[in-house]
Amino acid sequence: MPSEIGNILAGLPPALSGEVVDTLAESDSVRIERIVSNGQATPEGEWYDQERDEWVLVLAGSAGLLFEGALEPQRLVAGDCALIPAGCRHRVAWTDPDMKTVWLAVHFESTNPPRKAHCLP
Amino acid sequence: MPSEIGNILAGLPPALSGEVVDTLAESDSVRIERIVSNGQATPEGEWYDQERDEWVLVLAGSAGLLFEGALEPQRLVAGDCALIPAGCRHRVAWTDPDMKTVWLAVHFESTNPPRKAHCLP
Repeated sequence: MPSEIGNILAGLPPALSGEVVDTLAESDSVRIERIVSNGQATPEGEWYDQERDEWVLVLAGSAGLLFEGALEPQRLVAGDCALIPAGCRHRVAWTDPDMKTVWLAVHFESTNPPRKAHCLP
Repeated sequence: MPSEIGNILAGLPPALSGEVVDTLAESDSVRIERIVSNGQATPEGEWYDQERDEWVLVLAGSAGLLFEGALEPQRLVAGDCALIPAGCRHRVAWTDPDMKTVWLAVHFESTNPPRKAHCLP
């Protein structure tokens, strides 16, 4: 039987909860998450360095995504998506201080080299 | 290096193109697609019957998702998401006739039984 249908923008956690991650679907090879940020950033000096590829899509709010070696963060707004390849060190430099930022994140086993990865348009 | 950042709601194909599927990221275990529908439905009497799980999220527009055995389609609007387990026969009964319906679809190898699958809230 199919799972229940729900709305990813409904039931957002209260702002006081800090950053909240919910797993929406998961298998051995993939994990689909909703992440709700309330102005949080990756702690200063810390970097994410992940073993799996991560594809992210901002659904609401905005955020600054900084890749190691880049001069400044790339600004993401609603609808913006990016692939973060495994081993590509990055941090969230900022998230919107005035509203909740809702991310969809898909973590998956990478193919090396990646078969295809691009964003639209 | 990370891929370029793009906007999933930008560069939508013209209405005359029919239903258009673009692969945004892909590996051996997962394929992330943007699907843009312009009022199309699954042909009458046809069903999707997929070997992999599919998680879908409607980003714009609306659609009716019918699972075999259900009395009527479930209406999906922007933000609505659902897991369609492998082997779960389904069809798209309708998509919004008045605007483009934009889907995000994540196809992935299922774990049997699924470890986790739910939608929010």
